[in-house]
This record gives sequence, structure tokens and C-alpha cells, in this order.
Amino acid sequence: MADVSSATHEFDLVLLGGGTGGYVAAIRATQLGLKVAVVEELILGGTCLHRGCIPTKAFLKSADVYDQVKSAAEFGVNVKGDIEFDYDGALKRSLKVVEGQYKGLLYLFDKKYKIPVFIGRGELIDDHTVGVTPKDGSAPFSLRGKYIIINTGSRPRPIDGVPYDGKQVINSDHAVVLDKLPKSFIIRGGGATGVEWASVYHRYGTPTTLVGNVVPMEDKEVSDQLARSFQRQKLPVIQGARPTADDIELGKNGVKMRVKDAKGKESVVEGETLLVAIGRQGNIEDIGLEKLGIETKGSYIPVNDMQQTKVPHIYAIGDVNGKQLLAHTAMHHGLIAVEHIMGLNPFPLNEEMNSPSCTYCEPEIGSVGLSEQEATKRGYNVKVGKFPMKPNAKAVIEGHPDGFAKIVADADTKDLLGLHIIGPHSTEMIAEGGVARLLESTPEELAIAVHPHPTISEVIGEAAHDWLGHAIHI
Amino acid sequence: MADVSSATHEFDLVLLGGGTGGYVAAIRATQLGLKVAVVEELILGGTCLHRGCIPTKAFLKSADVYDQVKSAAEFGVNVKGDIEFDYDGALKRSLKVVEGQYKGLLYLFDKKYKIPVFIGRGELIDDHTVGVTPKDGSAPFSLRGKYIIINTGSRPRPIDGVPYDGKQVINSDHAVVLDKLPKSFIIRGGGATGVEWASVYHRYGTPTTLVGNVVPMEDKEVSDQLARSFQRQKLPVIQGARPTADDIELGKNGVKMRVKDAKGKESVVEGETLLVAIGRQGNIEDIGLEKLGIETKGSYIPVNDMQQTKVPHIYAIGDVNGKQLLAHTAMHHGLIAVEHIMGLNPFPLNEEMNSPSCTYCEPEIGSVGLSEQEATKRGYNVKVGKFPMKPNAKAVIEGHPDGFAKIVADADTKDLLGLHIIGPHSTEMIAEGGVARLLESTPEELAIAVHPHPTISEVIGEAAHDWLGHAIHI
Repeated sequence: MADVSSATHEFDLVLLGGGTGGYVAAIRATQLGLKVAVVEELILGGTCLHRGCIPTKAFLKSADVYDQVKSAAEFGVNVKGDIEFDYDGALKRSLKVVEGQYKGLLYLFDKKYKIPVFIGRGELIDDHTVGVTPKDGSAPFSLRGKYIIINTGSRPRPIDGVPYDGKQVINSDHAVVLDKLPKSFIIRGGGATGVEWASVYHRYGTPTTLVGNVVPMEDKEVSDQLARSFQRQKLPVIQGARPTADDIELGKNGVKMRVKDAKGKESVVEGETLLVAIGRQGNIEDIGLEKLGIETKGSYIPVNDMQQTKVPHIYAIGDVNGKQLLAHTAMHHGLIAVEHIMGLNPFPLNEEMNSPSCTYCEPEIGSVGLSEQEATKRGYNVKVGKFPMKPNAKAVIEGHPDGFAKIVADADTKDLLGLHIIGPHSTEMIAEGGVARLLESTPEELAIAVHPHPTISEVIGEAAHDWLGHAIHI
Repeated sequence: MADVSSATHEFDLVLLGGGTGGYVAAIRATQLGLKVAVVEELILGGTCLHRGCIPTKAFLKSADVYDQVKSAAEFGVNVKGDIEFDYDGALKRSLKVVEGQYKGLLYLFDKKYKIPVFIGRGELIDDHTVGVTPKDGSAPFSLRGKYIIINTGSRPRPIDGVPYDGKQVINSDHAVVLDKLPKSFIIRGGGATGVEWASVYHRYGTPTTLVGNVVPMEDKEVSDQLARSFQRQKLPVIQGARPTADDIELGKNGVKMRVKDAKGKESVVEGETLLVAIGRQGNIEDIGLEKLGIETKGSYIPVNDMQQTKVPHIYAIGDVNGKQLLAHTAMHHGLIAVEHIMGLNPFPLNEEMNSPSCTYCEPEIGSVGLSEQEATKRGYNVKVGKFPMKPNAKAVIEGHPDGFAKIVADADTKDLLGLHIIGPHSTEMIAEGGVARLLESTPEELAIAVHPHPTISEVIGEAAHDWLGHAIHI
């Protein structure tokens, strides 16, 4: 890290928070000639790198490998002997991946761009000053910035009355460093985080029960497909349940949770450990917002298209502005804020319509824009096109011919409103949807565009043909 | 198959050839209300389904699984015992995949669209008549069509003076049904087919030498990257060699080939079997072209944008028109020809600029449009943007952080001219390039488009940022 004591404390831009959006903003600002400092409470890289996206996907990859090894004979690869899942090995690899990415980030900050990072608690003192209480106990100091970007991120929300203890009741922050697997899990919450961890632990062989609606923000056909897939994988899911603290009993031998499923059937689920993934909340406390009259809404800081708060030279990017709690969205916020500071007239991001969501459970989900249900609710004359993975040769070859691609578009204007994919490589394939949405594409254009053969991406082309009324391979 | 004898022999459209382009054209024409017949010499589905794309990718998948099982411990999956590659298992799976796809196609023809398929040798008798000599030896007959589409495909070209015997000297047609692995291979030809089979056999553990320039049609940096990767994998490649029949000795114990590499160094390579993959040639012989004055060029039938030959109601689609010998190109030709017949004014396909190529060796390659070298040769003011896989978190997580994405664009007009990707999932990710090219995108648009995190597709966004002068994560 850069030497603080000798550094002047006057900057063009001070980043309050060195998570994904913050570090991207810091790098871009430095490229553009600004003098930048970052204040970060925990560690440069934030949730995504250290406690979120990256380690989770490493754990998921280990589950994929385990599945692949178990089914190897089907592909002509014979394993003569037992196959053992080594959780410690998976954990170590995850930590190693994170460490490697972290080192890359440190290289960019320390060597390439020479951006000072102050590890400590930051707080807005006035509209140009961030006070820093260093983590190492040294004396507090202040950083002055012509511009300030708030990027304090978010944290897992607890169930009211059931605080996290990091052992019996954990969240994703704890899961990524869990040093050994409990005997069994209850996972409360079926959003992306919940289904990913359920997909990890279930496939690791640990009895796991998922309590909550499965990816409720996705298109209903996608949620239904994932629920069916979990059922086939024998991963127990209790949809519709919304247990409160009253339904949860933390005992010596584990957790008991009273649940009522969507059909009203009551039961008690048990697990050694309860992983809670019911959502996140913005980190807005004790950072001096009130002092400056920067308003909050719920746990988030409202901003405009350029990510400006009500104080025009103070921006808020990433999770804490509450627009869309995704790392790539934070990155784009960072770029937009900095380019706006520089007067570069950046293109605004339409998070809801143009920024894809990815869920990396088995099977994967990638989606962008509106679901059929949401589009209908908003009054569009909705028309959908759909094509399953089953007839797709490459999906069959890869051994995962489950899922589909679905196109939601306006029947009147032909505007593509949403693309939803569940099945192999969905998280990679959805990038096409991001480009198609940005360029205001139509289903006809996606049908004319060449999707190479044999690839799974052909299902997108076929879904577009289906939208036009004439898929070929079904 | 439909009953021939009772069928009238008058059709709206006769397809001469039931390969990929032909079957797609037949289905689309039937959807549009045409009465269609297909004449196919061998088997419905053609090269791609039975002897090309599909079985090859199944064999490649088995190699991927073998690699993954061998490296499983790195991901926390311990295999206690020997790992054996079972070629017979891989072959059986490939045949099963092909059989499944073939059954799907038969369902479409026999049950859903009820399109008669005549298995036999077809030949143009006059400009509305295809004569058929049935394969089963029954009496020849004729089919009349208001329109005719020629889709006779292509076949592997032999080395002059070294005919295929299917045992010692084979091509990809033979490889897909090879009932046991020879002790060693020479593979002559480094195009997509050659490198794919080299990647299969080398990873199966069979000593294999590749003789020829590695993917010479790809961007030079892609070819160089693949050559380096093969070197790291210890797959011997002799680039620059162009052996003729004089250099090849077919002996009792195998094949000897005298080769001279790019640096002029001479050596002799040996193998039990020689797999030749030096290119393909169109099937234009004895199908009556001369009679109708339909000209040929080399071994191909020139056509216009709507796939019409010089006889306007006779079209030629797919490999035999020589525009681009790829299955997805053939499919689009089929759609265009049929929609043109119906007066639907189809959007023409710019094969060279808008139809991606995929190579499924390890590492994969996906590309669309012009290479840097080709764009320069054509006088564009070429500017490139590039981003490596190495810093990409998802590529690291998947254990394959080799390769890069490269954007070729016109510095003056900002037009995207080409996208080239080598590395994991390239063949899926290139679909984005197809859409971006069709929609006449610019690098700036690809940078603004959201590539979700963590995905490998981020390298495309970063390559676009690099083109603009400011990649972030490097």
C-alpha cells in the first residue's frame, strides 16, 4: 500500500469504499489523470472478490467437477476406485483463486496506477472531506476531495430476531471461509445466493434443505424449471415458506425451523447450520450522510443516471445506491460516475433493462430485461418465443440438455424486452442479450444473426425463430 | 420414410441433398406451405450430423472429461485409483448422440412435417426434373419441382496421389466410426478439422503428430496462441510443412512422411494411420449441371445473395456453393433460398463478415469477420483491442486462463470488423460477435454493453475498453 504519512491529503477524487465499483472507478479516474485515494474498511476488492461472486463460483466449480467425475464413465472415462469429495481441497482452491485475483488488484493499485488505499473506517466530515479512522489504531486523519464517490456496498440482511453468530447461523460471508462442512444445512432464501449455496452443498453430498421461493425475481418459467431440476436432483425445497424468528429454534444439536409450504402443509426442517440468504441491505450507517443532507431510501442512497446524490459532486455507486446489487452493475456505475466527473458525457446504464443477472447453480441461469410476467404487468402487448435445450445437439453432447431460452418482446413494436436462459453456459450466453438489448434489437434480428452450429447459443436463435412463428429443430 | 410409390411425383420444391442446409430448407418450405421432396444419396442429416460437427464434438467432449478427471484433485475431488480412457465408450457415446439427433430429425420429417425423403442418387434431368436412382436397387424415377435446391455438400479432399483407403489413410468420415484407436497418428492439415482431431487423439493418449499450419485462416495472434498451447500440451506440430505424395510412404507397419518445417528443417514423422484434413471439395460431379448450363467454379456452384444459380428457379446452398463450408451457414442459406422462393425478401447473409467460425480443440476458438491481417490487407485503418484470459476471474475458476479476446475495428469509421476469441467457451461467446456484426456495432457499444461478472465474456468488454484505450483489469 502507498505510504500515507508522506502523501498529501488533497485529492481530486476520494472513494469511500474499495469494493468492485470503487476500485474500477479509482482505476478509470487515474487513467483520466485524476489524483485518487481509496478508503476501505476491510480489504480492497470488497464483497464480490472476497466474500461473494468469486469464492462462490470457485465452490460451484468444485461441485461441477465432482458431478463430472461421477458421470465420467458415460463419456468413456473409467475411474477404477472411489471418488471422494475433499471439502478442504475445494476451500483451499477457492481461497487460492481469491488470493490470485487480489494480488492482481494490488498490482494494479500499487504498481501500475499507484493509487493510495487507506484501510480504515471512513466518514463524510463535510461535503469535501472524508475522515478516516485507521484500522491499525493509528491516529485518525482526513482526506479532502474535489469529488467523492460513496461505494460502501451492502451486507447480508439477517432474519429479524435471529442475529448471525457465524457458526450456527451464518450468511454467505461466513460460508466462503467455513473451515469444515457441517453435517447438514438449512438454507433460508431462494434468490441467487440461496440457490447457489444450496447447489454447492447438496452436490457436495451434505444434506441441505432450501426454504423459500426459487429465484422469485426470474421469469416464472425459469423459476419453475429450476424447481423441477432441483426436484430431479433430489434437493429438497420448501417453496412459499416465510419463517420468522418465532419459527426458528436454535438448539445444542442444531437448528429447527417450522415451515409452511405454498400449499399450507406444515413441517419442521432441521440442520446443523442455518445459512440465511434473504437479501442484502446497503451500508449507509455512520458515514455522515445526515450531516450533508444526503437522503436515503430504505437502506440505499438514491442517485440520478450519472450516479450523483443530491450533492452533485458526491456520487454513490454499486450496491449502496440500491439500483441493482450486482458487481458488473457497480463497475459500470463506477465508469459512469468518473466519466461524468470528467465531462465525458457517459451513456447511462438502464440497469433493469440492459444489465444481465446470472445465477450459477446447476443448471445456470442468465437473464436480462423483463420477465414475461413483469412485461405483461406493465401493459406491453407481450409475445414470447421459446426453445428447449433438449433438441440442441451441443447441450446433448455436454450431457446437460435441460432448460430453454425464452425471448420476451413487444408484439406491436417488436422491441426485445427480455431474454431468459436456463441451462448450460447460460451465464456466458446472456452477454449476447446485453448487447442485443443495448442495441435495441428485435427478435427478427436475433433470428437473422448467425448462431454457430453446434453451439448451445443456437437455442437463442431458435427462440427468436419461434417468436416469429417458425422454429426449425422442434 | 414416406411411401414413395403412392406419392405423386410433382412438387413445389425438390431438394437435391438432405444435409444440414437441405433439411432446414425442406422444413422451412413446408412451414410456408410448399409441397417438398428431398433426394438424399446417403442419409438424412448429411455430413454435419453423421460424419462431421456432431460426432467430432462428442469425441472432443470425452477428451475434455478425461482432462477434467485427471485434474480433479486440484478442485477438491479425489480419485482413489486408476483413470482409464475407454475409446470404445467414447465411440459408443458419439454414435448414441448422433443416433438421438437423427431420430429427432426423422420425427420432424416423418411425423411433424411429413416430408418425403428419397434415398438414392439424384441428378438434374432438365431444369424442373430430378432423376432418382434409388439406393435399394428399385427402378429409377423422376421428381418434378417448380423449384430445385441443390445441396449436395462436400467431401474431404485427398492428397493428390494418396487415395483414401479408410484404414491406413483416412479422413474425418472414417475417423468418426473408427472402431479402434491405432497406435499412433499423423494428422495432415491444421485447419479446424485437423486441429480438432489432433486435440482429440493427443488427449486420448495416442501419439499424434500434426503436420501443417495451425488454423491458418484465423487471426495470426490466434494461430500463434493455439500453436503455443499445443506446445505446452506437448502435442507435436510441424508448421509450414506441405508434403506431397512423393514424401509419403505407406508401408506394412504404418506411414512415413518426410516433412520440412517452416525453418527448413527436415525430418520424418511416422504413424500407424494418416488422417488427412487438407480441405474439402464440393460435390458437383454427375448431378447434371452441364446439361443445364449451370456453371461451376473450382468445385463449387456460384450463386447470388439469394442462393440462385444462373437458372433462377434452381438454387444452390451450403458447402456446394463454396461461400463458406459451415453448417450454420448452410442453414441460413436454406432459409434464405426458401424465403426468396416465397417472395419474403429475406435479409442476405454476409458469410465472410457475419457468420462465425468455431474450432472446438482445447483451447476453443470462436471468430467472426476479418482478422487483423486481412483487414489491413484490404486497406482499412485497422485498430485492435485485446484482453487476455489470464486476469479473468471466471477463466481462472474454470482452470483455463489461457487465450484472449481481440477486437478488430476501423479506426476511422469505428466499425467492428472482426472479433476473435481463443479460450474457454469461445464457441459460445462468439454468438455475441454475430449479433454485434449484424447490428453494425462499434467497440464503444461493446464496452458500454454489460458483460456480467464473473463471466469469461467480460474479456470481450475489456477488449472493447482496450480498443478505446483503457482496459480496466490489466
